[in-house]
Amino acid sequence: MRPRFYAPGLDPSAERVPLPAEEAEHLARVLRLGAGALVLVIDGRGGLWSAEVIEAGKRSAVVRLIEREQPAAESRVPITLVMGVLKADKMDDVVRDAVMLGVTAIQPVVSERAEIRMATLVKSERVSRWQRIAVSSAKQCGRAVVPVVHDAVPLAWYWAEPTDAVRVMCVEPSAVLGQVASVHDVPRPRAAHVIVGPEGGWTVPEVAEAHASGVILMSLGARTLRADAVPIVALTALLTTWSELT
Amino acid sequence: MRPRFYAPGLDPSAERVPLPAEEAEHLARVLRLGAGALVLVIDGRGGLWSAEVIEAGKRSAVVRLIEREQPAAESRVPITLVMGVLKADKMDDVVRDAVMLGVTAIQPVVSERAEIRMATLVKSERVSRWQRIAVSSAKQCGRAVVPVVHDAVPLAWYWAEPTDAVRVMCVEPSAVLGQVASVHDVPRPRAAHVIVGPEGGWTVPEVAEAHASGVILMSLGARTLRADAVPIVALTALLTTWSELT
Repeated sequence: MRPRFYAPGLDPSAERVPLPAEEAEHLARVLRLGAGALVLVIDGRGGLWSAEVIEAGKRSAVVRLIEREQPAAESRVPITLVMGVLKADKMDDVVRDAVMLGVTAIQPVVSERAEIRMATLVKSERVSRWQRIAVSSAKQCGRAVVPVVHDAVPLAWYWAEPTDAVRVMCVEPSAVLGQVASVHDVPRPRAAHVIVGPEGGWTVPEVAEAHASGVILMSLGARTLRADAVPIVALTALLTTWSELT
Repeated sequence: MRPRFYAPGLDPSAERVPLPAEEAEHLARVLRLGAGALVLVIDGRGGLWSAEVIEAGKRSAVVRLIEREQPAAESRVPITLVMGVLKADKMDDVVRDAVMLGVTAIQPVVSERAEIRMATLVKSERVSRWQRIAVSSAKQCGRAVVPVVHDAVPLAWYWAEPTDAVRVMCVEPSAVLGQVASVHDVPRPRAAHVIVGPEGGWTVPEVAEAHASGVILMSLGARTLRADAVPIVALTALLTTWSELT
């Protein structure tokens, strides 16, 4: 498989398409490619081209697009994963897996039982790290769309943001009074937000507030899953139900 | 939630139920429980009891069963995960996740592109490690069934073993000439073997041989998944299709 590079916002009509410094470094230093090498280039918004390297330096590289190619199919239901921030590398894995499963965006949220504070998140530049992981995961799994990783926000801010998407919140059945949907009860929407909690789960008021504002509460079955397995199981189950895992 | 302990092959009519040394150590040293503590005990075959600790030493503990409890529901389709052995801790994660998703057995196999040899597997006692992980994962997710982790065998030996279960092999669509099923095409069987390859995937002869012997070749979609994400995605997608993720 030809190596893929990410040139965000590239101009398909340009004769010379420069790669960002990080991609150029990967091309020349890691893969040791030089002028003449054949590669693939994505624009992160669904465009995929075969291309030829015409310049390769230590921190800069330029390619010439050859022709437009057919990328891996995208899900017809745009999905945002709204994810309670997990500890350290667990969150990295979640970002990587969610991109492979085809989400179009990731919204990290800090809820009551999050094990990390907003201030730490900002200081550690965690979001730019996740965005880099999203780029490399998109390249690896063959997508031409690079999902956007939004800035982390407190859960309350997320609720305050209006959306046309159907909101589905994963809950432990034991945590909820009243009716919880199974994955089969969630009809295929025009767009979806899949909302998953951190290691400690949601508090009762968090679930109650979601329920009161019309969010679908969904259980993934009787067995307790690890927090970092929930997003991959939830996304897979919903994509299967909506006939999108093809 | 009361702590759970595993007493394989316990006699429900006995007045005193001893715990294995490892479980006893966990009870006394890690959780610091003593006589009088209320716990849960599983026999690993579907039985769950509330129990009272009556003796707790450093390497031995005895409980008294109080009454039989209702464990988390098991899938009505017994599933064996037949898994190409992955590197180091990736395989640990797969065992843990597969148990949480309800498999009844795990059969590690060494195929052509496995990154580990049979001899290394045996010497490193990897299978007993995976069995311990299966125990702890079963306890954590609330199952009263502890899936058995079979000894690793070469893939050819696995094929030679007759089974009534429907065999479903996960393949990359690009790796196969001819028809590949999607998850929706796999009807709910009486029992299933879900077969997943190692990091390097299957060789063409391995897929061809499986196809010739009537194995269902299944693709999980156009995007390339990480090897250690494939089992969790495959199991979730099949359980969803068979209405077992409830």
